[in-house]
Amino acid sequence: MAIITLTTDFGTRDGYVGAVKGVLARFAPEARVVDIAHDIPPGDIAHAAWVVDTACWRFPHETIHLVVVDPGVGGARAAVITTARLHWFVGPDNGVFHYTGARVGCSLDPARLAMRLGLPSLKIAPTFHGRDLFAPAAAALVQGHSVELLGESVQLTGTLAWGDRPVGEGRVVHIDHYGNLITDLPPNEAGTAITIGGVRLPILRTYEDVAAGQLLAYIGSARTVEIAVRGGRADRVLDAPRGTRVAPVDPAESGPYR
Amino acid sequence: MAIITLTTDFGTRDGYVGAVKGVLARFAPEARVVDIAHDIPPGDIAHAAWVVDTACWRFPHETIHLVVVDPGVGGARAAVITTARLHWFVGPDNGVFHYTGARVGCSLDPARLAMRLGLPSLKIAPTFHGRDLFAPAAAALVQGHSVELLGESVQLTGTLAWGDRPVGEGRVVHIDHYGNLITDLPPNEAGTAITIGGVRLPILRTYEDVAAGQLLAYIGSARTVEIAVRGGRADRVLDAPRGTRVAPVDPAESGPYR
Amino acid sequence: MAIITLTTDFGTRDGYVGAVKGVLARFAPEARVVDIAHDIPPGDIAHAAWVVDTACWRFPHETIHLVVVDPGVGGARAAVITTARLHWFVGPDNGVFHYTGARVGCSLDPARLAMRLGLPSLKIAPTFHGRDLFAPAAAALVQGHSVELLGESVQLTGTLAWGDRPVGEGRVVHIDHYGNLITDLPPNEAGTAITIGGVRLPILRTYEDVAAGQLLAYIGSARTVEIAVRGGRADRVLDAPRGTRVAPVDPAESGPYR
Repeated sequence: MAIITLTTDFGTRDGYVGAVKGVLARFAPEARVVDIAHDIPPGDIAHAAWVVDTACWRFPHETIHLVVVDPGVGGARAAVITTARLHWFVGPDNGVFHYTGARVGCSLDPARLAMRLGLPSLKIAPTFHGRDLFAPAAAALVQGHSVELLGESVQLTGTLAWGDRPVGEGRVVHIDHYGNLITDLPPNEAGTAITIGGVRLPILRTYEDVAAGQLLAYIGSARTVEIAVRGGRADRVLDAPRGTRVAPVDPAESGPYR
Repeated sequence: MAIITLTTDFGTRDGYVGAVKGVLARFAPEARVVDIAHDIPPGDIAHAAWVVDTACWRFPHETIHLVVVDPGVGGARAAVITTARLHWFVGPDNGVFHYTGARVGCSLDPARLAMRLGLPSLKIAPTFHGRDLFAPAAAALVQGHSVELLGESVQLTGTLAWGDRPVGEGRVVHIDHYGNLITDLPPNEAGTAITIGGVRLPILRTYEDVAAGQLLAYIGSARTVEIAVRGGRADRVLDAPRGTRVAPVDPAESGPYR
Repeated sequence: MAIITLTTDFGTRDGYVGAVKGVLARFAPEARVVDIAHDIPPGDIAHAAWVVDTACWRFPHETIHLVVVDPGVGGARAAVITTARLHWFVGPDNGVFHYTGARVGCSLDPARLAMRLGLPSLKIAPTFHGRDLFAPAAAALVQGHSVELLGESVQLTGTLAWGDRPVGEGRVVHIDHYGNLITDLPPNEAGTAITIGGVRLPILRTYEDVAAGQLLAYIGSARTVEIAVRGGRADRVLDAPRGTRVAPVDPAESGPYR
C-alpha cells in the first residue's frame, strides 16, 4: 500500500491540512495518509528539515513524504520531487530537504534525481501549492505516473544557513517540544564529555542518570548528542539557540562538571 | 471506501477525539477516518464553519463530515444530518453549516434535506453528543441506513451573526493560524485594490510581491481576498477582528498605498 | 483489521510521532493506526492515565493501545504489555495504566497478564522506547507473536499518587481542554448536590441549565461528576487542582447554592 506522510506548518486549527487530505483522498484513494507533524513553527524551514529527517527513514521504502513549510510559496523557489535512499520527497526546494539529502551525501549531488514541477493549471492558488501542486504530484506518483513526466530535471539548491557541519564539532540544530537541545555531533566525535555555552557535561545514558532538575548530555534517538534537563527544559537553563556550538572536551581537563 | 472527516474543538490533549474514533472503529470499521482540525477555539462556531468550508469540498462525493463544535450540546439546538453538493454533514444546527449551505444558496432552503436526529437511547451523555449521537449517526450512514429513518425532516436554522454578505463589499470572516485575515470578498467584486481599516492595498499575487514585513492583499486559496504580512502576522499589524468591513477601492484615487 | 491507538506527550511539532508511525507502517503494515492524543502535558502520567481510560473502551476488542508518557524512559520502570477487558496496553509501568486496570479491579491483581518487555537489541535508544521498544512490541502482537515470548510475567506496580478513591467522596482527577473539572465521584454516590472548595452545586443535566458564566455540576461523559462554567472555564473560577476533594451534600442543608 502506498504511504504519503504529511509534514507542514499549517497548524491544527484551520482547514488547510484537511484540504490537502481531501485532494489525496480524491486522487490517490488507495494511499494511506500519515500525519507526521503540522505544528512546525510557521515558516521555520530548519525546524521542518530536522523533523522530516527524524521521522522519514522509519517508513518503508517508496514512502512519499510531502513537506510543506513554504514561506516563499508562489515565488522563485522551485517546487520539486526528489529522492533519497529509496524514499520520495515532494515540496519546495528551500532547505527543507537539507538533511534528507545531506546525510547520504547527495543533497547537492547533480546525479540525484530532482524534478522541478511545472504549473500545469491556472487553477493553482499562488499561496497554496500544498493543496494544488504538491498533493496532486504525490497522487500522480501513487498512480504510477513517471516522475520524468511531472517536471524537468534540476539540481537542488535549497540548504540551511548553517551549512555542513565542521569535523570535530557540532551545532544545536533543533530544540524539541520538551526543550531538549539536539545537536548534530555524532557519538564517534563526541567522546565522553562535551562543552556547550561554557558548560561541561559528561555524556550519560538516560535522564535518570542525573537528579531531577539537573542538566545532562547523552546520545539521543537521532544518534547525535542531546542536552536535556531531567524533568525540566534545557532551553530554559542554557542560553543555547539553534546554531550554538557544541564540542568534545577532555573529561580529564581541569574545571568542574556542572 | 467511505470517508468520515472530523472537525472539532476537542483539542489534542484529552480523550474526546479518541472516544469518537473508537465509536467509529467499532460501528463503521470499513470507513476511513480523516482528521481535519481539532484545535478549533472552544465553542467558536464561526471558526468551525469556515474551516469546514475550506476543507470539505476537496474530498470525494459522499464523504461524511462530522462537525462537533457544540457549546449548546444537550440544549435546544437540533442535532442534524444534512447534505450539500453530494456531501454529508452531521453535527449541531448552530451555524457550523452556515457556509457549506450558503454557498450553494440553500442553507435555509426548505427543499434541502436535513434530518433532526432523535435521541434513540438513554445512554446518550447530555454533554457528549459527538460520541453518543453524531458518531453513531455517521456510522449508520456508512452502514447504508436510510437517512429518513435516522430522524425527522427539519429546516436548518443555524446561521452566523454576520449573516449574508452585502453585494459590493466583504467582511473578515476568519483569521488563520498564520495571522492572515481572510475575507468573503470574491475576486470579481474586489477589482484591483481594497481598503480595510483605513488602509488601502493593491491586490497582488503572492507574499514575495512585497518586502518582508509589509502588508499585502491577494486572492487567497479560498478564492476570496486575503490580507497578510510577508513573514509576519497581519492580525498584529491591523486592528481588524472578524466582521471588519473590506471594500474595493479605485486604485486611481488619491492617497498613498501602504 | 488490527487497530493500534497512540497516546503520547510527544507533541505535534517534532518527528517523534512520525517515527513511531513509520515503525508501525514497516512492521505492522496491515494495522490501522489511530491518534488519540499527542499533546499530553510532558511527563504528566496522571493526565495520560485519564485520557486513555476516557477513549480506549470505545474501540473494538483486541485493540492495542500504545501509551508513551514515559519520563523515566531508560530507567528502572518496567516496559510492559498488559491486558484489560479484552484490550491490549503497551507502555511503561509508571501509572499510565492506573485506571484501565483499576476499573476492572485488577490493576494490582497478580492474575492479570502483564509481561515485562526485554531489551532484545542494542539498537534501542535509551531515551526513545516508544520507537524502539513499544512500537515493535505492538507490531509483534499484530503479527501474532505469542505475548509470552515477548517478555517475562510481572505484576504491575505503577499507580497514581492519589491511589484508590475512598467510598463516599471523590477527587478532581482531570482538568480538560475546556477547563472542566472531572472527578471520580460516580452518580450513585453523588446524590443531587455536591461540594467542592467550599462551593455547593446541585447536579444538573447540561450547560444550558445555567446562565452563561455560571458554574454547574453534572454527570459527565465519563459517568462521573464534572464541574464546568457555561461558556467559560471552571479551572479559572474555582481553585481546585487535581486531587481536590469533592463530596455529596444534602441539598436541603442550609446555605445558598452558588
